[in-house]
Amino acid sequence: GKALNALKEHPVFGFVDWCLRGIGQVVFQNNPVSGLIILGALFFNSPIYGAIAVFGVVISTATAVLLRADKGLIRDGLFGFNGALVALALIAFTSEDFHYGAVPSVYLTVYIAFGSAMTAMVFTSLANLVGPHRVAPLTMPFVLVGWLFLFAVLKFHSIDAGPLAKPVSPTQYDGTVQYTLATWYKGIGNAIGQIFFQDNWISGYLIVLGIAVNSRVSAIMALLGANVAAFVAVVYGAPEGAISDGLFGYNAALTAIALGGFFLVLTPASALYTLFGVVVSTWLWASVAIFLEPIGMPVLTSTFVIVTWLMLIGVNGFAALVPVAPADAVT
Amino acid sequence: GKALNALKEHPVFGFVDWCLRGIGQVVFQNNPVSGLIILGALFFNSPIYGAIAVFGVVISTATAVLLRADKGLIRDGLFGFNGALVALALIAFTSEDFHYGAVPSVYLTVYIAFGSAMTAMVFTSLANLVGPHRVAPLTMPFVLVGWLFLFAVLKFHSIDAGPLAKPVSPTQYDGTVQYTLATWYKGIGNAIGQIFFQDNWISGYLIVLGIAVNSRVSAIMALLGANVAAFVAVVYGAPEGAISDGLFGYNAALTAIALGGFFLVLTPASALYTLFGVVVSTWLWASVAIFLEPIGMPVLTSTFVIVTWLMLIGVNGFAALVPVAPADAVT
Amino acid sequence: GKALNALKEHPVFGFVDWCLRGIGQVVFQNNPVSGLIILGALFFNSPIYGAIAVFGVVISTATAVLLRADKGLIRDGLFGFNGALVALALIAFTSEDFHYGAVPSVYLTVYIAFGSAMTAMVFTSLANLVGPHRVAPLTMPFVLVGWLFLFAVLKFHSIDAGPLAKPVSPTQYDGTVQYTLATWYKGIGNAIGQIFFQDNWISGYLIVLGIAVNSRVSAIMALLGANVAAFVAVVYGAPEGAISDGLFGYNAALTAIALGGFFLVLTPASALYTLFGVVVSTWLWASVAIFLEPIGMPVLTSTFVIVTWLMLIGVNGFAALVPVAPADAVT
Repeated sequence: GKALNALKEHPVFGFVDWCLRGIGQVVFQNNPVSGLIILGALFFNSPIYGAIAVFGVVISTATAVLLRADKGLIRDGLFGFNGALVALALIAFTSEDFHYGAVPSVYLTVYIAFGSAMTAMVFTSLANLVGPHRVAPLTMPFVLVGWLFLFAVLKFHSIDAGPLAKPVSPTQYDGTVQYTLATWYKGIGNAIGQIFFQDNWISGYLIVLGIAVNSRVSAIMALLGANVAAFVAVVYGAPEGAISDGLFGYNAALTAIALGGFFLVLTPASALYTLFGVVVSTWLWASVAIFLEPIGMPVLTSTFVIVTWLMLIGVNGFAALVPVAPADAVT
Repeated sequence: GKALNALKEHPVFGFVDWCLRGIGQVVFQNNPVSGLIILGALFFNSPIYGAIAVFGVVISTATAVLLRADKGLIRDGLFGFNGALVALALIAFTSEDFHYGAVPSVYLTVYIAFGSAMTAMVFTSLANLVGPHRVAPLTMPFVLVGWLFLFAVLKFHSIDAGPLAKPVSPTQYDGTVQYTLATWYKGIGNAIGQIFFQDNWISGYLIVLGIAVNSRVSAIMALLGANVAAFVAVVYGAPEGAISDGLFGYNAALTAIALGGFFLVLTPASALYTLFGVVVSTWLWASVAIFLEPIGMPVLTSTFVIVTWLMLIGVNGFAALVPVAPADAVT
Repeated sequence: GKALNALKEHPVFGFVDWCLRGIGQVVFQNNPVSGLIILGALFFNSPIYGAIAVFGVVISTATAVLLRADKGLIRDGLFGFNGALVALALIAFTSEDFHYGAVPSVYLTVYIAFGSAMTAMVFTSLANLVGPHRVAPLTMPFVLVGWLFLFAVLKFHSIDAGPLAKPVSPTQYDGTVQYTLATWYKGIGNAIGQIFFQDNWISGYLIVLGIAVNSRVSAIMALLGANVAAFVAVVYGAPEGAISDGLFGYNAALTAIALGGFFLVLTPASALYTLFGVVVSTWLWASVAIFLEPIGMPVLTSTFVIVTWLMLIGVNGFAALVPVAPADAVT
């Protein structure tokens, strides 16, 4: 206990701790061991993605330290997770091979550094805007900065972005492929993996392990969310490839963690409320994807943020639901 | 009086009362008789539309009851009107024949139920967000949920949505057709009808009757709004078909009711302010329609909400205008 | 002193003073002499643009007077600058010759008057919305009203708008043209000029002079912002034409003025913060331009507002930065 606390105050080890928590906070886990396992899952899929996640989380956490942001927020890793996601997204959508990513040029590296740093500012601004309504910024800083930085990158000569290597909408998949058992178990793993842009279902299950180390409820919710999403997508005749790639499930999994025990006390009523949110997140991923397709932009985790905000901001108006005390829900 | 109050407390008749008020609240009328007449106008045009409006208002009002929302708001029908509109919109834009609508499949019915239920949550969230600025959510829950649910529906195999059967932008009409007397009297009726997606000018005038039962000022304002819109559209050379179909007028009519006596005390100054808002709503319907055309989305009542919000949120900064006390303006 | 104050209370000269300050407020200068010099710079480029700027500032300031808005805000010119910009934008993007503009028809003149008047309402509403977060509406009323009014204008028969005469995105420029010395000195002047839609680099330097009369810090910041933007655009291989036309620089210059001494006390930390914002504004101009290109809309000053809001709303969370007291920063 005492030794561990001393370690957390250490200038170097402390910073490492905050950054590992930052990786964990992508899936709401304020725990350095969760962050370490998730980072392992990324390196397992591709050392490039592992390294860029570290780069992103370090840049955005360091930015918060330099700007002398609130120490409690920094220590909980809350300035890190959006920075890591922006860095991952900028590699994922500028690399010829989405699966492994590519080592960025100097130009792109500087660009990513600015993007990750900016999430620290946007996080603080959004916290200021939505805080009075008792919700968190979630991954909105990542979504906003990700979109803004992705548009421009496609047109600068120094950053040679090819066409998006990855389908970003259900309409880009073949609608005639049959569902199989692999659609399901790979789809679930990939859905969790896609939260971190990992097209690797084994990495996905490793990430679930990382979550379970800190919270079994969150791990179960992530799996349930991805399963319900796959089920709904199948019932509504969605293309096999989009389900198998986990695209229908990653927003649903995040919504499930957020509503299922994290921001709302888990009761029969809130379980149904969560199920509702998961189903809606599944449909609306397709919706936002189709909306963004003409400009070639990926959905990122916008659907999760929109659904979760719309279902949480007014939750005090519903006596059937009990919000978790803010002190316990800091992501 | 006493007997009527007892009826309102009755578990079944009470719920019917709240739902009828919900239909009336689409046009700001907290009155079950208004709701009943408007429902009659819908059934007169198409029993499918009449039935789906009942379905939507029941689902969203029941959702609010199950989530134990504020009883006063439920009783005023405020959880119902957005649910009815979402249900109407999802039928209108997935049916081969916009005019009569089509009976939805089981898949689409489940989908509509989720959409209508979601408006109850979005209403509460938006009330929380815009309430401190002394404005109401208006039909924004409908617009948001409508857009989000309409995008996705176009791509699910189980929901066989054809191409939009109805033009959604002035650019889709023939610009060479001459204006006639029918352009005017059908255009006015259709404008009121389009608030409920009814392409039937007689239904439109029946809806005006429904409004007049509760408030003659609102009825006059709706007619004035639609007339000014037609006049402005003609002066600015808008296509005859779009005017005759009531597309220029439905947002303008709602803006006229909202600003003309409902949220602002009717004075010479506020009458001019309302006229300004009606003219701007007419132009900006075209604007939003052209903006949304590339993705094939209808404007819904977004123009009315945008103009009314932009003109009301800061109204306390204008000493020339007197807001109606919040207790008197609950929509 | 006393005579001057008496003049400011004079019904006619007072109004002229407020309008001249309104022109100055576009670049944050609450000073009638600044406004006069800037107006001279516009007339130097094109009497049409000079006249329309006067028209816009008069309409929106008069609207605020008629609605009996706060006198202090009116006297500081805060109701004028968005009105002037909307009028300039509507001429710039409906004229066959962007450079000189064209005299508007009666229809377009009425339309512009409504647009300019509407900025007074939107300014008050946005001040109400963002004020509690200690930021100003900036030019967002202009951006919102500008976009909404520009879409519709393209489709009304009475307003004969040709195709946009001016490229609105970097992708519309030839990417093979070499950078020269003129790219730089014309690009800087044009960047300042583009704030007012002036494609005239000499007008741009005259506007800098107008700023310098009131604040040398602001003038230096405007030039630094435009220079950094040109440098970043060159390093990242942006097309010569877009740099030379000042398109990369006008948002960056405004961000530089806003963050560099106006809203934040100038310190080494805030200077770095400003540099960060200027670099990001440069990249994100391209981003927003590419996003808006499919619908043919210009960026206007949206990038400046987005970056400045995102970097200022949460600034109280950063102990390294010191906001200027609200009383001293009223734009």
